[in-house]
Amino acid sequence: MKHRVVIIGGGFGGLYAATTLTHSSVAVTLIDRRNFHLFQPLLYQVATGGLSPANIAAPLRAVLRKRRNIEVVLGEVVDIDAAQREVILRDDRIAYDSLIVATGARHHYFGNPQWEALAPSLKTVEDATKIRRRVLTAFETAERSDVAEEIARCLTFVIAGAGPTGVELAGALGELAQHTLRNNFRHIDPSQARILLVEGTERVLPMYPPDLSTKAQQSLERLGVTVICNARVTDISEQQVTITHNGETKDSEVIPARTVLWAAGVQASKLGQALARATGAELDRNGRVKVGRDCTVAGHPEIFVIGDLAAHQDKAGQQLPGMAPVAIQQGRYVARVIQRRLRGQATQEFVYKDHGQMSTIGRAAAVAQIGKVHLSGFIAWLAWLLVHLLQLVGFENRILVFVQWAGNYLTRNKAARLITGTSSTSKASKSPGQPTSGDPQASNPHGTKVASELSPATSEK
Amino acid sequence: MKHRVVIIGGGFGGLYAATTLTHSSVAVTLIDRRNFHLFQPLLYQVATGGLSPANIAAPLRAVLRKRRNIEVVLGEVVDIDAAQREVILRDDRIAYDSLIVATGARHHYFGNPQWEALAPSLKTVEDATKIRRRVLTAFETAERSDVAEEIARCLTFVIAGAGPTGVELAGALGELAQHTLRNNFRHIDPSQARILLVEGTERVLPMYPPDLSTKAQQSLERLGVTVICNARVTDISEQQVTITHNGETKDSEVIPARTVLWAAGVQASKLGQALARATGAELDRNGRVKVGRDCTVAGHPEIFVIGDLAAHQDKAGQQLPGMAPVAIQQGRYVARVIQRRLRGQATQEFVYKDHGQMSTIGRAAAVAQIGKVHLSGFIAWLAWLLVHLLQLVGFENRILVFVQWAGNYLTRNKAARLITGTSSTSKASKSPGQPTSGDPQASNPHGTKVASELSPATSEK
Repeated sequence: MKHRVVIIGGGFGGLYAATTLTHSSVAVTLIDRRNFHLFQPLLYQVATGGLSPANIAAPLRAVLRKRRNIEVVLGEVVDIDAAQREVILRDDRIAYDSLIVATGARHHYFGNPQWEALAPSLKTVEDATKIRRRVLTAFETAERSDVAEEIARCLTFVIAGAGPTGVELAGALGELAQHTLRNNFRHIDPSQARILLVEGTERVLPMYPPDLSTKAQQSLERLGVTVICNARVTDISEQQVTITHNGETKDSEVIPARTVLWAAGVQASKLGQALARATGAELDRNGRVKVGRDCTVAGHPEIFVIGDLAAHQDKAGQQLPGMAPVAIQQGRYVARVIQRRLRGQATQEFVYKDHGQMSTIGRAAAVAQIGKVHLSGFIAWLAWLLVHLLQLVGFENRILVFVQWAGNYLTRNKAARLITGTSSTSKASKSPGQPTSGDPQASNPHGTKVASELSPATSEK
Repeated sequence: MKHRVVIIGGGFGGLYAATTLTHSSVAVTLIDRRNFHLFQPLLYQVATGGLSPANIAAPLRAVLRKRRNIEVVLGEVVDIDAAQREVILRDDRIAYDSLIVATGARHHYFGNPQWEALAPSLKTVEDATKIRRRVLTAFETAERSDVAEEIARCLTFVIAGAGPTGVELAGALGELAQHTLRNNFRHIDPSQARILLVEGTERVLPMYPPDLSTKAQQSLERLGVTVICNARVTDISEQQVTITHNGETKDSEVIPARTVLWAAGVQASKLGQALARATGAELDRNGRVKVGRDCTVAGHPEIFVIGDLAAHQDKAGQQLPGMAPVAIQQGRYVARVIQRRLRGQATQEFVYKDHGQMSTIGRAAAVAQIGKVHLSGFIAWLAWLLVHLLQLVGFENRILVFVQWAGNYLTRNKAARLITGTSSTSKASKSPGQPTSGDPQASNPHGTKVASELSPATSEK
């Protein structure tokens, strides 16, 4: 009987592990809760109306359809039975000989789970369309308001965290307000929007060299983004956000803001805890599973943990960053380890080849670190464009994204600015305490029904 | 003060009325509940994974941004005050001198509103993504089942109504099952799917000449669609659908089917009733507002009703069909009537120029009637392609749709096959009575929580 490899998670790590195992004499089962691989690095462009979800998603079955030794299972893994060597789904058990766990990470709110409803983060397609809806609805509500304070509140956007996601979101929002929405409204000027990017450390993109952080901040400021460093979001409500500077509570300011986006904390997927219970593996404070340099869990050479779920230290004792390239290289590595073991060959430990990192800011600027080379501005943006187009899974998607980017670049228009999942909006002036219009999540002080995604109303027009 | 024209509805009728009023000395307010114009003729391609919602939607503010005399209001009209000449929004009132009502139609279920949750229809973007989710989830559930009856039930798709929407849905589903999903699964053969198209009259596309109905049926059968004429869907449940032949109750058959799509009945938008109350206008049995040949409501020359909401008879006493071309021509017509009135010029009554009709069946076949010319097959499909590309609002959208169609045509792959709005699925074999996996609407006999669009689960992976 064939050696059974079960892979949990169809993200970068899981997908590249699976494709590397093609044509080998193993039976691969790839389990994911979604039927598509998501190209997360571009999710912020969905959240800001530049791309459609399908442009950055590739159906797993389509990607793997010709690889007959790979089976895709659409299901949710709830636990792992390390003794029986079985993965436990909500309604099924799947046996494995080798297990690759790559369920990634989610945002977390530093012990303030109630903030999740008020300040969405950006991990799933649903998160992206929700953020898109909230951002666009904020401009719409401002347009219909005649109360200056309410308009200002609607046009204030706070982004917590200036890592790559926060910076890319802020830049795209600046682009939207400064250019895309120009002439779209008759009563408000979208370019008056305040976009506050709040970062806890002393500079944006702290994982980059200082000179690139400076370039990034300059590019952001050109797009009207206000960067606030050494500060943290310490409270969020429907109406306002509290920003505390230098960790001094007395040094706090309250800013009326309708839209708060969360790009601050990352926490490993819940499955890490199940894995710890099942194998006695250690978790770090972010819930990541500590693994050896061969990506396996202590005492379980048959269980590999890769990508954002893994706490992996390199030779130098450096924690590998939660980036797609790490997950991709680990995916390929563990696939080869499994193949070599089956052939009785020796295996080496994983070595991460750092090809650098790049982040984009708005329409035509980026920062890139490629080894010792530091790029910024337009040239870095071209490099970013090229790399991301090449990495995008699915040939058709590449063409579509390229056409869309060309369109966005030339026209500064963003075609995917749809407010979906709702069909209602309300005039804010009458009641400043009103919920995010039509947002099913918003609590509602007036007790009036807020149209939800599936309300009959939506199915009329 | 400028003459105030208020347009309710940003569909074909409303949008073309607005654009025709550009640069004229009127102040136009276009009110819609959505922030985008939707190109409904292609919505079935979103429902079957061929296109993304944004590909067939154009943000109203973007389309109209350069037309300074036009204001877009995102809001829901709940009533009309014909005496005060005011439109009543949920939270506002807007005064008009001329009113154009173009809120279109929605599907209706012949007095069986409970069927709406069981058999979605196709009017909104949310409908389309819901149908896409249900169809794809049906194949996924079949793949994970090991009970023959359950697999057959999951792979049976019933479409009620063989008008253009039903025929195009059936053709696209056939294409999906026969070609797109080939090799995607390991346990089921998607081409074994049963697609039943149920039509009450004696032929599909009854509004076409008989020879084209025959051609359409042949094309459908080539795609594995079973056409059942002179029959009606008379009952729908989670588990099965009842089809009654020739109106004879004794002549009924019960078919186990997991997915039922509704393309049968159309009913005018609810606003028609408000308009009737406000103006004493008559409604026909489908809730459409009876208008004169100048598109106005009796006794209210300042109120125009156009598009699917209007019951409009031509000279010959023929009821104009609920088609985009009718709405577009009426939109332009009423805009010109308003302009001529302001100039004190005489107006003529509306005359519909019938340029014909076309419907597509699957990937490379269509039927078209252009005056006396009847086209079918590939040539008709090319004509259909051209016409729909030209009509599509938004230049960027045209390129994107063209690229996507080219990709779909060449690769037979459909990139937009995303199951969104859910992150969970269940193995059907364990409980045949299980709800449409992860469908928030599905009632749940087991009381287990079905992940909803906004469940925390979705925000993990």
